[in-house]
Amino acid sequence: MLLLDGKKLADELKSEIKTEVDQLVSQGKKQPHLAAILVGTDGGSLTYVGHKVKACEQVGFKSTMLHFDSAMTEAELLQEVAKLNADPDVDGFIVQLPLPAHISADKVIMAIDPSKDVDGFHPVNVGKVTLGLPAFVSATPLGITKILERYNIETSGKHCVVVGRSNIVGRPMSILMSGQLPTGNATVTVCHSRTKNLKDITLQADIIIAALGKPEFLTGDMVREGAVVIDVGTTRVTDTTSKAGWRLKGDVKFDDVSKKASAITPVPGGVGPMTVVSLLLNTLQAAKQKL
Amino acid sequence: MLLLDGKKLADELKSEIKTEVDQLVSQGKKQPHLAAILVGTDGGSLTYVGHKVKACEQVGFKSTMLHFDSAMTEAELLQEVAKLNADPDVDGFIVQLPLPAHISADKVIMAIDPSKDVDGFHPVNVGKVTLGLPAFVSATPLGITKILERYNIETSGKHCVVVGRSNIVGRPMSILMSGQLPTGNATVTVCHSRTKNLKDITLQADIIIAALGKPEFLTGDMVREGAVVIDVGTTRVTDTTSKAGWRLKGDVKFDDVSKKASAITPVPGGVGPMTVVSLLLNTLQAAKQKL
Repeated sequence: MLLLDGKKLADELKSEIKTEVDQLVSQGKKQPHLAAILVGTDGGSLTYVGHKVKACEQVGFKSTMLHFDSAMTEAELLQEVAKLNADPDVDGFIVQLPLPAHISADKVIMAIDPSKDVDGFHPVNVGKVTLGLPAFVSATPLGITKILERYNIETSGKHCVVVGRSNIVGRPMSILMSGQLPTGNATVTVCHSRTKNLKDITLQADIIIAALGKPEFLTGDMVREGAVVIDVGTTRVTDTTSKAGWRLKGDVKFDDVSKKASAITPVPGGVGPMTVVSLLLNTLQAAKQKL
Repeated sequence: MLLLDGKKLADELKSEIKTEVDQLVSQGKKQPHLAAILVGTDGGSLTYVGHKVKACEQVGFKSTMLHFDSAMTEAELLQEVAKLNADPDVDGFIVQLPLPAHISADKVIMAIDPSKDVDGFHPVNVGKVTLGLPAFVSATPLGITKILERYNIETSGKHCVVVGRSNIVGRPMSILMSGQLPTGNATVTVCHSRTKNLKDITLQADIIIAALGKPEFLTGDMVREGAVVIDVGTTRVTDTTSKAGWRLKGDVKFDDVSKKASAITPVPGGVGPMTVVSLLLNTLQAAKQKL
């Protein structure tokens, strides 16, 4: 069984990005610059944005974190978005989700300049990815693609079952895996809460992407011998033995499934670290497109 | 076996649209107005645009056909698009594809105002459909959705196999069928040229959407008893007995498959007529949004 080590791969990619940034800077070009807007302190948002800022430092990016009170109005947030759109020094920026309930995330995302939308959430980027055109692929799907690519997982002609149809992971993954890409060309089945006989379907899969957000949902009896399993789940479950009082659980029952899988991502240390590095990859791309 | 009569349904829908248009006009509102740009006279393009113009007349729309020589430059075409974008009388317009080789269709589509893009080809509309947001759904997928809706075909929890992954049909159908829509919520498998054991997969399908463009590809042995079969193929094959010298063939071997299917669309008279009426539905929606 091959452990698909997202942590190690993310470190490798960061080192490659740093080399590119150093080259740009030594040529007198400006540092890539990622900005992040955070409104309020919902759940893990502060932690996530913190990881992104730290990752920027590691690769030599400039980063700006704009942290606003949760009482901020939608109009005020839209104004901040407009400022970042207009700022020539900012190559890409993100608005950390979720937003407070009184702000429409759809409206805010629509306001982001697609050429700076390094989260790949703007409909123009989603549409281009759907159409197979060059665009920013959102971070988690891009991270999974990089895992498949760097570990030379064959996808063409394979049967890939995606469990989950969220806009953030399931939907884009099903599009990318069935698209005409080096890590695509798979026959793809999209399963979700309405799917009947899920186990009959997952048992046919050469590749399973579990992205439904239910801890340890995918068990060994649902997986065919030799399947490749990508676990996108990151649910915080209470754990009194941990310092934080919780730990991350994936959607895959690892101990069980790893006995049958030919390759599998752990949680933590699988898809998670690749998500942050994908944001860096998109920001580097945005910076290079402007040069 | 239920024949899914697209011709009859299209006539019903046209009559419903006409009633709405008559109401709008009697209230002193302006007629919905669809414009079409045609460059050159490639293949069936002139015929297709002709059908669209005729359909506009039938429902009381105003229509404008702009027919340009195939020597037209890309810049000239982009200027015509800009004019239609700016024309307050035009509610929606299409640029008939294919375009001559020296013009980039992607560039032209990107130039269309998404709020007038009644073909639903602009990445913003594709992206919104992918994200499950309100948008113009392109005509063929919308037509298929209407067939499923009007014939009360249950889709939720069913296994739908889409054969083909084109941007025009296969891709959007797979997204719509697996989305959270009244005619969605199916478990969807996308198959294409790289798929192995296609027959094993189609034999599992409750609903098959054949959209690969290979005449009579789907044969009876590939279909499970009781399946619903939607035939999107419209290939012109030589037929010396017909006046035109050709006739339309679907992707489904009708005589064969109709013996097993519980419901099936014929070719011609199935999906084809629904495509034109869907363009009218989108134009009516565009006109109403402006009111």
